[in-house]
Amino acid sequence: MNKRKIDIILKKILPKNRYQHTMNVVEAAKNLAVRYDCNVKKASIAALLHDCAKSFSDEELIKYAEANGVKIDSVSRHDPQLLHGPVGAIVAENTYGVQDKTVLNAIRYHTTGRKNMSKLDKIIYLADIIEPGRTFSGMDKLKSLAFEDLDKAVIMALSDTIRYVALSDSLIHKRTISARNDLIIKEMQKYNK
Amino acid sequence: MNKRKIDIILKKILPKNRYQHTMNVVEAAKNLAVRYDCNVKKASIAALLHDCAKSFSDEELIKYAEANGVKIDSVSRHDPQLLHGPVGAIVAENTYGVQDKTVLNAIRYHTTGRKNMSKLDKIIYLADIIEPGRTFSGMDKLKSLAFEDLDKAVIMALSDTIRYVALSDSLIHKRTISARNDLIIKEMQKYNK
Repeated sequence: MNKRKIDIILKKILPKNRYQHTMNVVEAAKNLAVRYDCNVKKASIAALLHDCAKSFSDEELIKYAEANGVKIDSVSRHDPQLLHGPVGAIVAENTYGVQDKTVLNAIRYHTTGRKNMSKLDKIIYLADIIEPGRTFSGMDKLKSLAFEDLDKAVIMALSDTIRYVALSDSLIHKRTISARNDLIIKEMQKYNK
Repeated sequence: MNKRKIDIILKKILPKNRYQHTMNVVEAAKNLAVRYDCNVKKASIAALLHDCAKSFSDEELIKYAEANGVKIDSVSRHDPQLLHGPVGAIVAENTYGVQDKTVLNAIRYHTTGRKNMSKLDKIIYLADIIEPGRTFSGMDKLKSLAFEDLDKAVIMALSDTIRYVALSDSLIHKRTISARNDLIIKEMQKYNK
C-alpha cells in the first residue's frame, strides 16, 4: 500500500489527536532522516504507522500478539500497552503490506528501544518524543541535541524515560535498559574512555 | 570461621571508613532481621562480609571472577565494580568458609538486587543503603519505610538507585530492573490491582 492510501485509512480510523501526533512524528522523522542521511521514504512510512496499534485495548493487544507468535514477557503481560510497537509491526505488515524489515523493526521497537538500534530505529524513537505536540521539561535541549548527535540524543531520551518511569510504580522494560547500556558502551568505545 | 574471627580479619584489612560502614550495615541488618523474623546470625554474617571484595581493583575483580566461573556480562565488563558482590560471595566461601547459600546469595546480589529476592537478600540490600553513615535526600522516608514494609522499601530503594544512575552516564544492571519489576508485579498481585 502506498503512503497516500495508508494516510487516508489512518485519518479515518485514528482519533483526531492521535492522527495529529502521527503527522507530527512523520514531519520530525523526515527532518531527522535528512539530517542523518537516512532513507526519507522509509522514515515517513515507519513514522506514519508507528502508532497503528495504539488504539487497541489491552485484551486486543494480548490476543493479537498471541495469535501472531509475539513473545509476551512478564512486563508486557502486566503492561500490555508496551505491545503496541510489536503488534503495530505485525499490523503494518499484514494490513498495510509493509515488507521492509528496517521499517517494521523501527515500528516494533519505537517505544522501548532495543540493543543495536538501527539508524531508522533511533530516528523513529526520537521523532515520537520530540514532535511539537509534546511538552515536557528538557524538550528544547533534547530537540536541539537530536539534530546535533543522534546517539547522544537517544541516550538522553532513554535516560529521561527511565527516570520518569522509575518515579512511578510502572514497570521498566528490559529492552529500554539494553538500548541505553548498549549506546553508552558504544559512546565509551567511540571516545576510547 | 566464626563471626569474631572474621571481624578481626576485616578490621585489619579494610580501610577504616569501609570497616565502619560494615559495622553500621551489620547493626542495620540485625535490626531488620529482628523486625522481619529472619535469622539474625545469618543476617550478621552476610552484612559483615557484604563488602569483603569492595577494595579489589577492577582488574582483580575481573581476574577473580574469571578464575571462579562468574559470568561477566557486558555491563559488568565495563563497570567491574558491579562484580564486588558476586566476587565477594566467592571470597566469603573460599576465604571465610561461609557455606550457607542464602548468606552467599545475599552477598552476591547486595548491589544489584535480583528477581525473586529472598528475605535475607532484601535485608542486606536495604541495610547497605539505610545505614546511618550514608546521607541522601529521602533517607528518613526510606529508613522509616524499611521498618514498615520490606518489599515497598526495597522497591523505593531500587527506584531511587535507577533514577540516580540514569542521571549520569553510568550503566544500569539488568538485575536491578528485574528485581524492581518482579517486586512491583508481586505487589500488584498482593493487592489484586
